[in-house]
Amino acid sequence: MKDDILYHFALGTSTHDFPALFGDVKFVCVGGSPSRMKGFIAYIAEELGLGSVGADYPNICEGTDRYAMYKVGPVLSVSHGMGIPSIAIMLHELMKLLYHSKCSNITIIRIGTSGGIGLEPGSVVITSQSVDATFKPQFEQVILGKTIIRSTNLDDQLAKELMQCSKEINQFNTVIGNTMCTLDFYEGQARLDGAICLYTEEEKLQYLKAAYDAGVRNIEMESSVFAAICNLSGVRGPQGSRPPLIRSAVYRLLPIHPLGFHTLYHMPYQFAAVAEERYRGSGCDIANVALMWQLFQTIPPNMLSMQALSGRALELR
Amino acid sequence: MKDDILYHFALGTSTHDFPALFGDVKFVCVGGSPSRMKGFIAYIAEELGLGSVGADYPNICEGTDRYAMYKVGPVLSVSHGMGIPSIAIMLHELMKLLYHSKCSNITIIRIGTSGGIGLEPGSVVITSQSVDATFKPQFEQVILGKTIIRSTNLDDQLAKELMQCSKEINQFNTVIGNTMCTLDFYEGQARLDGAICLYTEEEKLQYLKAAYDAGVRNIEMESSVFAAICNLSGVRGPQGSRPPLIRSAVYRLLPIHPLGFHTLYHMPYQFAAVAEERYRGSGCDIANVALMWQLFQTIPPNMLSMQALSGRALELR
Repeated sequence: MKDDILYHFALGTSTHDFPALFGDVKFVCVGGSPSRMKGFIAYIAEELGLGSVGADYPNICEGTDRYAMYKVGPVLSVSHGMGIPSIAIMLHELMKLLYHSKCSNITIIRIGTSGGIGLEPGSVVITSQSVDATFKPQFEQVILGKTIIRSTNLDDQLAKELMQCSKEINQFNTVIGNTMCTLDFYEGQARLDGAICLYTEEEKLQYLKAAYDAGVRNIEMESSVFAAICNLSGVRGPQGSRPPLIRSAVYRLLPIHPLGFHTLYHMPYQFAAVAEERYRGSGCDIANVALMWQLFQTIPPNMLSMQALSGRALELR
Repeated sequence: MKDDILYHFALGTSTHDFPALFGDVKFVCVGGSPSRMKGFIAYIAEELGLGSVGADYPNICEGTDRYAMYKVGPVLSVSHGMGIPSIAIMLHELMKLLYHSKCSNITIIRIGTSGGIGLEPGSVVITSQSVDATFKPQFEQVILGKTIIRSTNLDDQLAKELMQCSKEINQFNTVIGNTMCTLDFYEGQARLDGAICLYTEEEKLQYLKAAYDAGVRNIEMESSVFAAICNLSGVRGPQGSRPPLIRSAVYRLLPIHPLGFHTLYHMPYQFAAVAEERYRGSGCDIANVALMWQLFQTIPPNMLSMQALSGRALELR
């Protein structure tokens, strides 16, 4: 391929010098929301001592509104939208970006929020494996009309390192557990408040209980294809080629709630004001707004995922 | 439900007067990109004589970066991101918005670009039915761990009306055909230029040929769940209730290419400058940039989908 276009990033090998722009990348953090990933890069810049007061971080993908991308030092921060197809497009183009940039020994971490099962609000789940909506550790994909199954294993060692970070910080209840990845937010996660709901609350609870019994500790919408593509990354074309070394872990901060109440909401590292504005009275599945508000108060801005990443990135300097 | 939060719109029944804000909505146009949907509302405002020179259209969902929403007169324009899960979340909350706003007789149209099969560049496909990656007219969904099948039928009458508009305008090659909806952009649509590709060009062509033989004329990533949720809309809670009258058609402008070259790119209603900037030298699957550039020149800003919608909306005034 002479000229490779990363179409949804609005970047291309003939228009951008990839090794110069991205060759030093060692850590990639991905998350759903563009504004959150911008906030993340500002935070990480300060943590790494690479930022300056009031610095703005330009969106590397400003030529498109599909995704946003920010970089500081060895850390790349990329948004991926919501759901498996959206993150899959991003990951295909991210892997090509890393390949063209001649990167190696990359650690990729997905951060975000999720619905939790049987855990205290504010807990952190480090994903050991991603399972589908029937609790199988696999990602089903249709290619050329045929269903294939891909592995959703993640990096055990990285999960242990992140858990060790959590112990040292000692601020959050952190568990290593299975993460269920669904294709739908409302019916797919047994919510009762979608536009369509053809099951009872009792059936919902039975399903969540079965998920818990299968080791599921949280639910979200991207981890399976994240694991699958990270596992396969570097495989390029039918002939195949050596994969670059990429380690990955889905790493999810879970600010919610006992079995029977599951709701996904946003990571509060933009602090109390935003949290209050966004969630005051929101309810969702949760009746107790006071609890939610209290929860935001308890999560400090330097959230665990950032600290863990920061710690790892600092080792490189 | 006392207070209903449309979480991903950052709107709620206790904080927003839905009937006052949205009660007059009769047409909803949805598309992937936020900036495109903003451009669309400015265009439609002018077409309907509801706009003023240099008017800005505020984003109704400014409290979130998940989706963007704009309104002028009876027309609502909403972005939905990429892929089935992303549009599904939006549609659940859109249906609740229309329900709480006491809307009726709504026409919902999805507009966008897609990869075409066996059609001239610039052609328009009006979707008769959405089929999956095995060419079946159905949408598979996992609810409480069980796979269910939903219908992907669309409104035949609306498709005919849109076709009639196209004939009157007589500017675009327009067909009514099947649209294949995939869960993946690269491998799912048989592209050769993803980060992972484990099939040959010959296998790709065989698959696209089979799709063509099954009546597929274009490929995208949202139509099946769009059809399914529109079909089911109004069903609310296990007890069920009367659905509001909603008519829907997926309506796609397809600026591409003969069998064997399929690539998805953006709708060029922001004219030549943007098109040139974004696609110059891009190639994607297409070797001939000159052809692509020529193509953008031939598509006037008042694209067919807008005119068709405009015509229908004008009847209401």
